[in-house]
Amino acid sequence: MSLTNASPEQAARSAKISSRTLATLPTHARNAALDAIHDALADAREDILAANARDMELAKKSSQNGELSPSIMKRLDLSRKGKFDDMLQGIKDVRALEDPVGRVDLRTELDEGLILQRQTCPIGVLLIIFEARPEVIANIASLAIKSANAAILKGGKESTESFKAISTVISKALESSEVPNDSIQLVTTRDAIDGLLELSQYIDLVIPRGSNDLVKHCQQKAHMPVLGHADGLCSIYIHSDADKDMAVNVVVDSKTDYPAACNAVETVLVHEEVIDTILPAVASALIAKGVVLRCDEASRTALSSHLPKDQSLLLQSAADADFSTEFLDLILAIRTITFDPKSPTAAIDTAIDHINTHGSHHTDAIITASKASADRFCSGVDSACKFWNCSTRFCDGMRFGFGTEVGISTNKVHARGPVGLAGLMIHEYRLAGNGQGAAMYGGSGGRQYTHRKLPLS
Amino acid sequence: MSLTNASPEQAARSAKISSRTLATLPTHARNAALDAIHDALADAREDILAANARDMELAKKSSQNGELSPSIMKRLDLSRKGKFDDMLQGIKDVRALEDPVGRVDLRTELDEGLILQRQTCPIGVLLIIFEARPEVIANIASLAIKSANAAILKGGKESTESFKAISTVISKALESSEVPNDSIQLVTTRDAIDGLLELSQYIDLVIPRGSNDLVKHCQQKAHMPVLGHADGLCSIYIHSDADKDMAVNVVVDSKTDYPAACNAVETVLVHEEVIDTILPAVASALIAKGVVLRCDEASRTALSSHLPKDQSLLLQSAADADFSTEFLDLILAIRTITFDPKSPTAAIDTAIDHINTHGSHHTDAIITASKASADRFCSGVDSACKFWNCSTRFCDGMRFGFGTEVGISTNKVHARGPVGLAGLMIHEYRLAGNGQGAAMYGGSGGRQYTHRKLPLS
Repeated sequence: MSLTNASPEQAARSAKISSRTLATLPTHARNAALDAIHDALADAREDILAANARDMELAKKSSQNGELSPSIMKRLDLSRKGKFDDMLQGIKDVRALEDPVGRVDLRTELDEGLILQRQTCPIGVLLIIFEARPEVIANIASLAIKSANAAILKGGKESTESFKAISTVISKALESSEVPNDSIQLVTTRDAIDGLLELSQYIDLVIPRGSNDLVKHCQQKAHMPVLGHADGLCSIYIHSDADKDMAVNVVVDSKTDYPAACNAVETVLVHEEVIDTILPAVASALIAKGVVLRCDEASRTALSSHLPKDQSLLLQSAADADFSTEFLDLILAIRTITFDPKSPTAAIDTAIDHINTHGSHHTDAIITASKASADRFCSGVDSACKFWNCSTRFCDGMRFGFGTEVGISTNKVHARGPVGLAGLMIHEYRLAGNGQGAAMYGGSGGRQYTHRKLPLS
Repeated sequence: MSLTNASPEQAARSAKISSRTLATLPTHARNAALDAIHDALADAREDILAANARDMELAKKSSQNGELSPSIMKRLDLSRKGKFDDMLQGIKDVRALEDPVGRVDLRTELDEGLILQRQTCPIGVLLIIFEARPEVIANIASLAIKSANAAILKGGKESTESFKAISTVISKALESSEVPNDSIQLVTTRDAIDGLLELSQYIDLVIPRGSNDLVKHCQQKAHMPVLGHADGLCSIYIHSDADKDMAVNVVVDSKTDYPAACNAVETVLVHEEVIDTILPAVASALIAKGVVLRCDEASRTALSSHLPKDQSLLLQSAADADFSTEFLDLILAIRTITFDPKSPTAAIDTAIDHINTHGSHHTDAIITASKASADRFCSGVDSACKFWNCSTRFCDGMRFGFGTEVGISTNKVHARGPVGLAGLMIHEYRLAGNGQGAAMYGGSGGRQYTHRKLPLS
């Protein structure tokens, strides 16, 4: 790892060169580098915590001046119980994952002795931009080395001392490994982000890990693809045939398990037929958990007549903007979906339209007893994740069984939904022959392609 | 298909809305629409050819004024033998391909009764920008409908009359089908490209089909991903242990089979040890086919002493720029790769460096008898396609057995190399449960995820 005061362009160019060496290293060489990083960080715990304490000291002053939020201070603090050990364990966890490089997913005989193979290979150079959390360096360096990608890391200024300490240790650890030192570059110069975002000749993919504003900024400025999502406006639609207990459990979990998460629910759509039956149970459970409900007129009227006075007094009226807001807090917007007795699917279609118009294409769920209704909902909703009778909170790389999570993507190309190591791969085609030319094929008397599917060996 | 004089924004918005309906249509509905388009175009052959004749009339005048190249006129002419029938057959061929939508490629039990599934789904709205060839409309409309993507088509002004005629026929054919009319939009307003390239809220992917300048323009201006390649600077490296006949056959085919293609070879790198043995045979065969050779000093000296006078007189000296030039013509640059007897892999590594620096990451080949050398080359070269002992001309969707080709991508994310229908897909996750919430899992006493891999059913 280079702790670079070089220009963004120099950092990016040397990362690109190193990426080609990294791409040719076998699994054991990359795993050995991860072991070396793990052990070196464990040995340097005290130095790193001392550096982090210096960051915290400055942060405390900024916080007292009102320049820094308490939540950023919390994220910055590496001395919190278990945090350092979690960082070390994270390296071991990534090391234990299957090697994502060189997986063959297509083999075709084009002709006798002319064999085509498609296999995974690293993307090249990743630019990872993150904010306060210093342990992200170790996490990202592990993911990059495991996936044989070079990485340029750009961190927030609050954690400069911690970054420098961690990167110095990683740099030293890499010296004893086969992974080129320039594979992981830390850029500490101020305001280098925009310059980096233009270097599409060297940088292949940007992964912003931080606030919505950071992601939006990258999406607007980057000359290369950006992996991630800016907003997480998730909705749940309660259909007329929903099970009441299920609706209560799923909505309460989706809203209250971790309200600040991108996969928490922000809007509940409820079929008009059940606003007097299921909705009061859902609303009552939410209010008991401290959730503020912003209701459209029909749902507010229904709830007012069913909820006990102390709860109904807490109801608020929804403004239009509430249905386009990611609250990231214990606030939920509720909209009634009217139905047409002549068209049994009209309500589902209205819910789909609402979600496609107001949502952020992240994760949306339906509660229904009918597979046909669930299928219609899942086909119509234009989101990365469509859930049936379960919490939106399951949208997560670890929960999906990917072993790690690079981020959650709402992109329409490359990777979508929770992204594991596979999202840091692209494929290449290898064709092996014994002298064939294309002019030998087709026409009258020419050879014919066999296009025989071969087993993946 | 709408023949729209609407604003680019209106066209894009209505394409987006239609795309959600299209995404829910079953295979047979999309195939029926392709049949209807095929039959309607066959019936309207005379009207379309009459419209094309009007385009040709105008083009002839522009050509006489020197404003239009003869090659564009050739591409514009739909009345050339077999062209109309090929267009019709192309629709049938796309119809016959397997449905790319809804293919399940991952099924995991997260817990009993909580089943995760990843499946392919259409990307949404494609913007296809193309130049003179009017038959591309039918081809692209077929690919879009088959893959359940809406498409906005923007054609070159030379073929306006042909486009209008074909699109009117397709529009009428779609009226009798379940495919929404707005799914295929033809934009004929002048200079609408830049406006369309900014509409990332409606358009998910741009596919430019035309000149390098068009592709570069899209890459620079588009706010959404661009699928394709601007340059095709392909190289072949002849290693010291190459078979002479194989080298001759592969290089001659790669250069002369179709010199204007993106997968034709532009640079040959040759190991110093074989510039007096293999290279003269390769050079002689190329010159006999009319290829002009631009040689570095060592290869020129060697060839001058081995080739007959009439051939050696035709040799040219290479300038630096020749090794960064996509000639698209019967011109080839030749560079000698020096070797270090102490390091048997140094020559391969030099060839790799040359290709990664000067090439366009499209298709590069090695001629060698050694699998180890081929593997080293393939791992080191940063290209979509790496070929061993066969012509670069095999880089092609039809030849790879994909049934159709949307284009060839040098992108590092999403799709790379020849792109078939699979490149017009993204995936979605569907999770089905029976009321589970995330708070039930983990911690002490919480449920554990099973993460059991299920067969793809």
